[in-house]
Amino acid sequence: MDTKLIDALKDRIGSTKVLTDDNTLRSRAHDYWVVANLRAWRGDAMPMPGVVIRPTTIEDVQKTVRVATEHKAPLMPFGLGSGVCAGVAPDDKTLLLDMSALNKTRFIDATNLLAGFDAGKNGMDAEDAVAAKNLTIGHWPQSIALSSVGGWVSTRASGQFSTAYGNIEDIVYDIEAVLPNGDLVTLGKAPRAAAGPDLRHLLMGAEGTMGVITGVTLALRRAPEKRGFSAFYAPTMQAGFDMQRQLVQSEWRPPVMRQYDHPEVDRLFKEHVRGEDALLLMVHEGPEARVDAERAAAYAIAAQAGLTNADPVVCEEWLARRNHVPNWQELFEQTIIADTVEVAAKWTDIGAVYEETVASLKQVPGVVNASAHSSHVYQTGINLYFTFAALEEDPRKMEEIYFECWDRVMKATAKNGGGIAHHHGAGRLRKPYLPMDLGTEGVDLLRRVKQAVDPAGIMNPGNLIPD
Amino acid sequence: MDTKLIDALKDRIGSTKVLTDDNTLRSRAHDYWVVANLRAWRGDAMPMPGVVIRPTTIEDVQKTVRVATEHKAPLMPFGLGSGVCAGVAPDDKTLLLDMSALNKTRFIDATNLLAGFDAGKNGMDAEDAVAAKNLTIGHWPQSIALSSVGGWVSTRASGQFSTAYGNIEDIVYDIEAVLPNGDLVTLGKAPRAAAGPDLRHLLMGAEGTMGVITGVTLALRRAPEKRGFSAFYAPTMQAGFDMQRQLVQSEWRPPVMRQYDHPEVDRLFKEHVRGEDALLLMVHEGPEARVDAERAAAYAIAAQAGLTNADPVVCEEWLARRNHVPNWQELFEQTIIADTVEVAAKWTDIGAVYEETVASLKQVPGVVNASAHSSHVYQTGINLYFTFAALEEDPRKMEEIYFECWDRVMKATAKNGGGIAHHHGAGRLRKPYLPMDLGTEGVDLLRRVKQAVDPAGIMNPGNLIPD
Repeated sequence: MDTKLIDALKDRIGSTKVLTDDNTLRSRAHDYWVVANLRAWRGDAMPMPGVVIRPTTIEDVQKTVRVATEHKAPLMPFGLGSGVCAGVAPDDKTLLLDMSALNKTRFIDATNLLAGFDAGKNGMDAEDAVAAKNLTIGHWPQSIALSSVGGWVSTRASGQFSTAYGNIEDIVYDIEAVLPNGDLVTLGKAPRAAAGPDLRHLLMGAEGTMGVITGVTLALRRAPEKRGFSAFYAPTMQAGFDMQRQLVQSEWRPPVMRQYDHPEVDRLFKEHVRGEDALLLMVHEGPEARVDAERAAAYAIAAQAGLTNADPVVCEEWLARRNHVPNWQELFEQTIIADTVEVAAKWTDIGAVYEETVASLKQVPGVVNASAHSSHVYQTGINLYFTFAALEEDPRKMEEIYFECWDRVMKATAKNGGGIAHHHGAGRLRKPYLPMDLGTEGVDLLRRVKQAVDPAGIMNPGNLIPD
Repeated sequence: MDTKLIDALKDRIGSTKVLTDDNTLRSRAHDYWVVANLRAWRGDAMPMPGVVIRPTTIEDVQKTVRVATEHKAPLMPFGLGSGVCAGVAPDDKTLLLDMSALNKTRFIDATNLLAGFDAGKNGMDAEDAVAAKNLTIGHWPQSIALSSVGGWVSTRASGQFSTAYGNIEDIVYDIEAVLPNGDLVTLGKAPRAAAGPDLRHLLMGAEGTMGVITGVTLALRRAPEKRGFSAFYAPTMQAGFDMQRQLVQSEWRPPVMRQYDHPEVDRLFKEHVRGEDALLLMVHEGPEARVDAERAAAYAIAAQAGLTNADPVVCEEWLARRNHVPNWQELFEQTIIADTVEVAAKWTDIGAVYEETVASLKQVPGVVNASAHSSHVYQTGINLYFTFAALEEDPRKMEEIYFECWDRVMKATAKNGGGIAHHHGAGRLRKPYLPMDLGTEGVDLLRRVKQAVDPAGIMNPGNLIPD
């Protein structure tokens, strides 16, 4: 890496925040994407960033952005590294901006139900901070203990309670960011506005390509008065989809609705297996009277839809284990390559997306698991979270199987009218498939907007937007 | 207007769709902005568009956009003309694109709860079309009988039932638009996506500056099982704000919550006046059990907050009269200049926004009414809808009073932390105040995005974005 660039960074923001030691570079070489972890595990020579910058103030971020612009050097924001789609993939020319030292709670406002955080704030720490005041962010990604609030916004994340509490775009009140020109902006004003296009959406989902998110204000909720559970067996996935459709289209909103197909019930809830049935579990939250009415409605609609009751204790088992994140290395050592892929579709398409994707995955040699559960429900449709796993002894061939499986999920989803990305973002992994959702004209529009916001092309180049 | 340009338009899309007769030009000279109507009423020489184009196909729109680009001619989309902020203000160089002939219902899908419409579809006609299948869009702007579905999206509109059913950005499923380069795009895919920034937000609120919206798909709801009413007197506006805050922060969502200050009760609900009290009315909708529980919660919270019960028949009176739109000419003839201004603020700011704005308006000579009601409620805050009216015999001076009143509302709102535009959009009227919401850096960002999407600057130039 150019020593003039390193010197300029040290000069502007202080040498203690500009790190080039091997350990630091290695620890920031990639995110939680399976294949990056596979390559590291099997001992490939891994690309590493040229330098890691750890800002402790917003001004540090502005100065770094300006240095990157002056030197036309690629700048890559790094939250806490829990992304799974290769949104972070530096090379030795890259200035990696490690946001983890910018991690303060700025304020908690129990009257307006707002809390402000530095972007690098750990998600669980943020939730704990508001929980101490009997409040909740209500955003529970599986990665909550490993991810940052800035990362949530940057990737358009969803949490496990999204069906009632919304995805991150419904929770964000404002976004503070440093643009590629060094401008510090706060996007978002008031509870709602009609003052031109909602510019927060330039940063949400941009995955570091439009600027650096430095702070976010999130809307909160009061801790619910009551929590209740319900659980059902569905004779087919379609029967369970139909039941969920009827429930939400009747204006009920259990924050959690999760439907596992038989292979997942067998893997995750062995004691609750019943024949080949799918298992649907729900968590109900809110004022007591509403929770009671919602549970009664769920049981009534389920019975009409041909579902039968399961033991709601399964919901508590799920709550206890829900944030377990797989350890890729352990799987590799068992000669297993696996991943999850989340997509979404309208109600009339989701059955075909499920059937065709699972069938297609099973055709890949070595695949020993092709399964799915749904976990985020809308008036108009639902998501699916596929899991594939394959046995392969040759660590080189694992990668081939991996990309073949991904390709099949993307194509089977798009062919049946689904959207190819529900909540993990695109990164470099999904980038080739982005035209399936946006169309070539949509991708072109995104590219032109990116060019306008980042004319020098320094922000996370190569990410998200097809070349 | 350049005859070559007219000829090119006639040649490409057919002479019957290219209109230059005086009546047509005059009928599309402005929107429903008070001041444009005042100027026309007092006999000012009004600018008129150079030509009115009435496309009947999407291809017509694409061809028109391409002609405009080739001739660098300003192109101004016109829905049904119900805007109130001068988003439409053509001059004799303007190609005015009248979308009203593009007015088909494309489909109604009762399973996925979606309906597709051409952009020029009248709002009430769209609602009637889905109501025939026992569905509802749930979007009820006061202008519903006068506005188009494309206009709703273009201006980031809100409806009277937004507190439960959301604003237009929560209802839009996808947006079809012709970009300034002639590309036809459909933005939005699947019930939810994390495939880069949500590009729908480039068009929503752009008010014709980023392209031409040609079609929209809206998410629907099933007709509610039950509707219920509740009504309360609040001793002060602040007491009523506090009660509404407690209700929504307890996770109840009456679709309608409207709180009128005493002058508005006196003007609109004379039979329900009680001392100087404010009047808060609510409409509850949904499954019967939830409506009953919500009404009970509202009465309990109201009693605790020091509110007292009013006759809920006032809700039915409001429902019957709610879509009355003022006739500006009748007011001018009574020497009255009046308007409404909608803003929003956090709960802790809204009281000061109300008090200071009303006090400031009352200082303007001639003002005989300065009042407000709230009508859209969020976890984090609430909107206010100010009404001012002044008596002035000189039609020239009416305009001065008008701009003075607007200026005072904008400044008192911004000074107290509020957002200066809740749901009418910005247009040319609010344009000078846009930096209050976006900051100068935010405005600059918007300007750069606009430049990227519309490099020739043909789309509704002079609208929305400060020069």
